[in-house]
Amino acid sequence: MKGKVYLVGAGPGDPELLTLKALRLLRTADAVLYDDLVAPEVLGLVTRKAQLYPVGKRCGQKKIRQSEINFLMVALAESGSQVVRLKSGDPLVFGRAGEEMESLRNAGIPFEVVPGITSALGAAAAARIPLTHRHASSAVVFLTGHHASETDPAEWNKLAASGSTLVLYMPGHEYVEISTKLKSAGLSGETPCALISRASTQSQQVYRTTVESLGYAPPMPAPTLLIVGEVVRFADEVALAEFVVPNQHSNVVSPLSPLAHVQSSAGGRDQEPIA
Amino acid sequence: MKGKVYLVGAGPGDPELLTLKALRLLRTADAVLYDDLVAPEVLGLVTRKAQLYPVGKRCGQKKIRQSEINFLMVALAESGSQVVRLKSGDPLVFGRAGEEMESLRNAGIPFEVVPGITSALGAAAAARIPLTHRHASSAVVFLTGHHASETDPAEWNKLAASGSTLVLYMPGHEYVEISTKLKSAGLSGETPCALISRASTQSQQVYRTTVESLGYAPPMPAPTLLIVGEVVRFADEVALAEFVVPNQHSNVVSPLSPLAHVQSSAGGRDQEPIA
Repeated sequence: MKGKVYLVGAGPGDPELLTLKALRLLRTADAVLYDDLVAPEVLGLVTRKAQLYPVGKRCGQKKIRQSEINFLMVALAESGSQVVRLKSGDPLVFGRAGEEMESLRNAGIPFEVVPGITSALGAAAAARIPLTHRHASSAVVFLTGHHASETDPAEWNKLAASGSTLVLYMPGHEYVEISTKLKSAGLSGETPCALISRASTQSQQVYRTTVESLGYAPPMPAPTLLIVGEVVRFADEVALAEFVVPNQHSNVVSPLSPLAHVQSSAGGRDQEPIA
Repeated sequence: MKGKVYLVGAGPGDPELLTLKALRLLRTADAVLYDDLVAPEVLGLVTRKAQLYPVGKRCGQKKIRQSEINFLMVALAESGSQVVRLKSGDPLVFGRAGEEMESLRNAGIPFEVVPGITSALGAAAAARIPLTHRHASSAVVFLTGHHASETDPAEWNKLAASGSTLVLYMPGHEYVEISTKLKSAGLSGETPCALISRASTQSQQVYRTTVESLGYAPPMPAPTLLIVGEVVRFADEVALAEFVVPNQHSNVVSPLSPLAHVQSSAGGRDQEPIA
């Protein structure tokens, strides 16, 4: 009998921002294929019987091609496994899920998509920035900074100049270049913006600046996100004045939380390498 | 001692798409202020000791003003209550959270934002549409259809014409008008689009069409969402051909799920009216 693949969003980092459905699937999966950015605390929720496959394309010792990930997913499901393909954030936003779904369809493997909290929402919550606001922005755009060269420059400029809130995923550390691009697109140098590092984790940091001064922003630990637009003015002035942890929260799990009933650490588990 | 307010996202409808943190807060809240679109199954998770306040602005018998909601939140927190302000989707996307956060700041009430699965992600998962795709769209825009008149038409046109994936929240039933607006902005009539009704619930429906033919789409039960762009081509052809439930799933909760340990129905609870 064929298995099934679940493309599951792991959220921005805090394991409490997993959905109840994601937790249920992680507890019952036979195999979990996960990206580099998935938090160890989230992997700690995976049932012990499951095989863990790190398939991150960034920091791994061996570069894994998308075609190899697709092949592995299909092979595991064809052998009857319940497979969770775990992606940080949401699977359908900058996650290559389109290509993975196509492989699954071609192979006739049943699959389901389980949404997750995408990084933009985690970062906005951390910095308490409304992404839309009746008096400031009636739309929000998610685009990438790091891979901006992959985007048609005319499209990027239209989006940047629209007056909407911009959320740049993977801005990298080339803040001077991003500042220049935003100004070239027509944004005022005074437009407020905020860099959010490791949103929703215990080490989250928020740095507020302007498009003009973005080049002076210090490098911050990845993953980072850049929010640009008038809505940043509505953020908490005090919380954003310096490097701070605005919503300091403990990873200690309340007895009422479902997390308390499962293993809470990834330490000591055998992680099966793909090779 | 002052209480605290949590602005919490309830997700798109399926109670299993709540976050673990939202569940923990609903189980421990003293008061819950909720919008019309929050699913009864989600309200069923609220602890019995909590006061429930329906503060929806749409379908209520009495129209509640935003200022009244803000006043109620502040008053409850000042009396020492742990307050959950529960919004469908994510609180920071088309949710008036900016105004509510401002009231809380002005009153010196501590608060925290807990992100939720915004409707766009729930709808994309239901229709299995990648919102971004290496070969089709490198950005995604969330905007509104229903309140399009509130948006600067030039901004709306720039966004629509950008070539990015568009997700229209609250498109209403004026599909002819939306089709005309999209074409006026420069979109080809052949651009594929999909209407998703009640995403993530047992009665979810997906209807696929084109910008040209959007006017012939049947009215579908609210809440609906419209996804426009080349990425809709990557959706499952079979699943989207007709009115279907692509990811048919049962609300029967597995014994492993944390939902199994709490009351699962909103029926029979006393709901305290605001008046």
